[in-house]
Amino acid sequence: MTDVKIGIIMGSQSDWPTMREAAQILDELGVAYEARIVSAHRTPDRLWEYGRDAGPRGLRAIIAGAGGAAHLPGMMASKTRVPVIGVPIQTRALSGVDSLYSIVQMPRGFPVATMAIGAAGAANAGLMAAAILAGEDAELGRRLDAWRAALSASIPEEPRDDD
Amino acid sequence: MTDVKIGIIMGSQSDWPTMREAAQILDELGVAYEARIVSAHRTPDRLWEYGRDAGPRGLRAIIAGAGGAAHLPGMMASKTRVPVIGVPIQTRALSGVDSLYSIVQMPRGFPVATMAIGAAGAANAGLMAAAILAGEDAELGRRLDAWRAALSASIPEEPRDDD
Amino acid sequence: MTDVKIGIIMGSQSDWPTMREAAQILDELGVAYEARIVSAHRTPDRLWEYGRDAGPRGLRAIIAGAGGAAHLPGMMASKTRVPVIGVPIQTRALSGVDSLYSIVQMPRGFPVATMAIGAAGAANAGLMAAAILAGEDAELGRRLDAWRAALSASIPEEPRDDD
Amino acid sequence: MTDVKIGIIMGSQSDWPTMREAAQILDELGVAYEARIVSAHRTPDRLWEYGRDAGPRGLRAIIAGAGGAAHLPGMMASKTRVPVIGVPIQTRALSGVDSLYSIVQMPRGFPVATMAIGAAGAANAGLMAAAILAGEDAELGRRLDAWRAALSASIPEEPRDDD
Amino acid sequence: MTDVKIGIIMGSQSDWPTMREAAQILDELGVAYEARIVSAHRTPDRLWEYGRDAGPRGLRAIIAGAGGAAHLPGMMASKTRVPVIGVPIQTRALSGVDSLYSIVQMPRGFPVATMAIGAAGAANAGLMAAAILAGEDAELGRRLDAWRAALSASIPEEPRDDD
Amino acid sequence: MTDVKIGIIMGSQSDWPTMREAAQILDELGVAYEARIVSAHRTPDRLWEYGRDAGPRGLRAIIAGAGGAAHLPGMMASKTRVPVIGVPIQTRALSGVDSLYSIVQMPRGFPVATMAIGAAGAANAGLMAAAILAGEDAELGRRLDAWRAALSASIPEEPRDDD
Amino acid sequence: MTDVKIGIIMGSQSDWPTMREAAQILDELGVAYEARIVSAHRTPDRLWEYGRDAGPRGLRAIIAGAGGAAHLPGMMASKTRVPVIGVPIQTRALSGVDSLYSIVQMPRGFPVATMAIGAAGAANAGLMAAAILAGEDAELGRRLDAWRAALSASIPEEPRDDD
Amino acid sequence: MTDVKIGIIMGSQSDWPTMREAAQILDELGVAYEARIVSAHRTPDRLWEYGRDAGPRGLRAIIAGAGGAAHLPGMMASKTRVPVIGVPIQTRALSGVDSLYSIVQMPRGFPVATMAIGAAGAANAGLMAAAILAGEDAELGRRLDAWRAALSASIPEEPRDDD
Repeated sequence: MTDVKIGIIMGSQSDWPTMREAAQILDELGVAYEARIVSAHRTPDRLWEYGRDAGPRGLRAIIAGAGGAAHLPGMMASKTRVPVIGVPIQTRALSGVDSLYSIVQMPRGFPVATMAIGAAGAANAGLMAAAILAGEDAELGRRLDAWRAALSASIPEEPRDDD
Repeated sequence: MTDVKIGIIMGSQSDWPTMREAAQILDELGVAYEARIVSAHRTPDRLWEYGRDAGPRGLRAIIAGAGGAAHLPGMMASKTRVPVIGVPIQTRALSGVDSLYSIVQMPRGFPVATMAIGAAGAANAGLMAAAILAGEDAELGRRLDAWRAALSASIPEEPRDDD
Repeated sequence: MTDVKIGIIMGSQSDWPTMREAAQILDELGVAYEARIVSAHRTPDRLWEYGRDAGPRGLRAIIAGAGGAAHLPGMMASKTRVPVIGVPIQTRALSGVDSLYSIVQMPRGFPVATMAIGAAGAANAGLMAAAILAGEDAELGRRLDAWRAALSASIPEEPRDDD
Repeated sequence: MTDVKIGIIMGSQSDWPTMREAAQILDELGVAYEARIVSAHRTPDRLWEYGRDAGPRGLRAIIAGAGGAAHLPGMMASKTRVPVIGVPIQTRALSGVDSLYSIVQMPRGFPVATMAIGAAGAANAGLMAAAILAGEDAELGRRLDAWRAALSASIPEEPRDDD
Repeated sequence: MTDVKIGIIMGSQSDWPTMREAAQILDELGVAYEARIVSAHRTPDRLWEYGRDAGPRGLRAIIAGAGGAAHLPGMMASKTRVPVIGVPIQTRALSGVDSLYSIVQMPRGFPVATMAIGAAGAANAGLMAAAILAGEDAELGRRLDAWRAALSASIPEEPRDDD
Repeated sequence: MTDVKIGIIMGSQSDWPTMREAAQILDELGVAYEARIVSAHRTPDRLWEYGRDAGPRGLRAIIAGAGGAAHLPGMMASKTRVPVIGVPIQTRALSGVDSLYSIVQMPRGFPVATMAIGAAGAANAGLMAAAILAGEDAELGRRLDAWRAALSASIPEEPRDDD
Repeated sequence: MTDVKIGIIMGSQSDWPTMREAAQILDELGVAYEARIVSAHRTPDRLWEYGRDAGPRGLRAIIAGAGGAAHLPGMMASKTRVPVIGVPIQTRALSGVDSLYSIVQMPRGFPVATMAIGAAGAANAGLMAAAILAGEDAELGRRLDAWRAALSASIPEEPRDDD
Repeated sequence: MTDVKIGIIMGSQSDWPTMREAAQILDELGVAYEARIVSAHRTPDRLWEYGRDAGPRGLRAIIAGAGGAAHLPGMMASKTRVPVIGVPIQTRALSGVDSLYSIVQMPRGFPVATMAIGAAGAANAGLMAAAILAGEDAELGRRLDAWRAALSASIPEEPRDDD
């Protein structure tokens, strides 16, 4: 695990179908990561240790997904200066507006790089983590450029009627 | 401090003008309390210790005020089974809707007894704490009954035009 | 019924699938409760009597679920100083934001300990009621500690892909 | 008081500057009314009696203003079949959206005729009460028609720059 | 049609499944009504005529359902002093919040008695119309009292588990 | 008035400080316009006539500002096929979200070209009206291009600290 | 393509089922258009070129649909003075409120004529584009009048129960 | 300017009082930056060039503040893979909810690291930029650690009454 640069953490198993999108992007870009369940409320000590060790272990960014009160990203940002990228999970009653507000409205001193609600946000968290790493890894930068170019190239000129 | 039954905690000095309302109610009802600044993000270890010691120290309820991402009440509820009463502080941009959602939308397992946004919520947090204690303190129960009766008795029959 | 410490009340039969979560938690924790339908609007006199008798009957907390205008928890808080724990039921058009605002925005004098919208909120209402009782019941406190420990212990280290 | 057809009630003295608009309209239209402070939470028994006696006393409509959790109009609608006209008072944190949802989202069986938030809503409550009475009072109908005609006639053709 | 006291109008056929609830209530209470499609935008002249004739034809209340921009109730209130009861139809994107705001936020001079969003609101519109008529029709008043009493009597004491 | 191409209408005098921004833009661009107060609710017949005559009189666009229930733009769009540009006026309680929803959520068949809430929206309504006319008036097109170029040229490279 | 007066652009293929409504209206009215996928983020250069050429190519209006951050309509309005009509696409988490705010809240200088969220908005975008063209095309004006008249004529007098 | 690692850009001079908070943090941490006005709508070509050159010029993060439709951060993210940190500026009518949604709800492929609305968000943008740089600059990392430690150390134990 010495090469792991990115930690993907989430509050519960039920967040994985969303957060898997981040993992997939990192797989596509060849960035090593780990995926862990770290619940701010159910496993606060695990959160404490994860945050304490993140820097020393060499993590360069932490992607944290959470829904509802969604304290995980912000508490992680309190425990480490490793950049934390927050993904608001869509929720049943409030559609993720609760998650979004809880993650983005952090007080002065503890930023969380907040992404869009749901799967697109999780994928973008992977891309943001890669972009951070790419600042000092020219090869990864080229792979990221290629990924972006391929995305752009995939857009047809005209809409198709076959749906 | 052996008699202190209620802890009033808040994320920053700027929350005190609101949270003072809780203290004032407890003063009126003769309930001993302490007031502390405990920031979930700026002093996470203080939060940890406060939560760890709350039960052993004999606290019977913790009133926690916070604004914005407002992680304090929920993280405290994660660290102790002493009932946590949350007060959403009104915020500049989102008027406290962010605070409210972050406090009330707690996941299964970790309730926060959420009050109204702002000063009325803080006063009510004091009353809720007193009501919890009154369950086993008949004398306090009578004082609380009297407080409520006085509030009701203060309502005039007709509105006055002199404002 | 002399042992009943907790009353679970709700506005209509349709709230029961949500409120049953509170009952289930109390069952797991071995706390005696009663479940009643008390509609603020359709059976106001039942509400009056329930509130009037709650204290004398020895209830230590009342869990009240309601949706939409959701007046039940607040009116109950007006009639008794027994702590009222409010559960906003999710609604069709406004997803329970209406229920939440109607329950949480109580005026100075009459707190309702508001939980999250929906089933998680109902379960948490059961836990909050138990936590209130545990303040004077060390045995229940130990069961509650164990319940919380079991919840924490159930969280795996890593997410599973099998969903 | 035998001629009083309309009751204007409100939760507290602080609602009167808003609710006075309803009284003023009724004054202009020559409709007899009474203004009372009836708090759902602080004076629930007063509410009970007011609702019980409203019909027998000959009230033809009740204008009820309330803010925040705003239970007064809905509880009054539960106690009497005299039409209840609800006025959501503007609030500090949530601007009256809480009042509006609490008043308008009534369950099947207990309508509240909800008006706009704030002073315009209070004035309109007076007009709605008058319109209800005008159904059986042709003279009042003519006064109401004249009031509406005067309002329309007061609209200039072009905007003035002198503000 | 000389006996018709209540007009039920709606913007389109697609509103009828909701507005039928109002008709059903009036049927149950024995109140004569008519149901018409009157679109503020598609048939403005029909709206004009309906509003112009409502009073002379003897209508005592107009129940108007509309969704989205929902101009029908407010424009009808502009054309006649017959009380207009507005029903916000639930909408696809904004769940009826758009309908609610468009109906309830009427300016000074033109009240619309706004009901809850959707079917409960439509049913309540029927009850409000009946309550207005009952002010001068003691027999209808008794039927309305009985309807309300039956609703209250239908509430069981305890929730059933069989759902 | 034969040259007037653009009508600026608004619900009341109090909308003029906002709507004046549209007039100012049209003055700067040399586009002839008229400004009128046309209230959907207080002067519905004036609205009817304005809409009926707009096309025959040669109006090429109608800028309509309104707040709250804000029926003016939509009703005008119902009466004429001349393009209607709607400006949501900021409101006291709901900040213009009510105005925005009432104006933009028009049903199929009757578009209103909705602008931003408040003064920026009013200025943009003037620009949109000019852009529509510029489609067939090359000289105006050049003036509009120059206006846009001047706006762009006015942006300094770096922020100044002197505020 | 020399006759094409209207461009319909959208951020992705997934917007086409909504935007097709605009195309269908233009087909019904006999207005020539083109449909293109132009993504503000994935194909910014395509956006640049489309905006640069829109005027010279003779486009008289551009209908732009986008969801979420929804930058397409506003960026297009920055690049050309050809009127841009924006259609907020309904989104999963925020139902299109995000799309609506991103499209309508344009700063002074760059109006986007914003339509309702979703399919009705797309259809109305087609009608608005036609109405702009009809200002100088009397024949199209007559077809548009006929389309509107047919829509009005299709409204039955009374609702049908057969649904 | 060869040492400049961070670009701070904003849509207009009026954003500077907010964005200055980011500059101040970078000053405190000894991180070189530049501050530029780049308007997505008024100076799109400047945006294009800034995005094109950001990577080659050696920028490691771009802090972009914008309000309302707020297209600047997202368009910048489209033009460069240098991490973009977005700051939603508080707005008059919608309090910055419009800015927040426009910035955070980016589609798959183009992340913007979104901060809290207003000044706290701007300060946090500076901290996030520093944290990204600190990943490869141990000395900066120590300064950032010290900054965070000083913030934590500044929190008193108890609230003061002297306000």
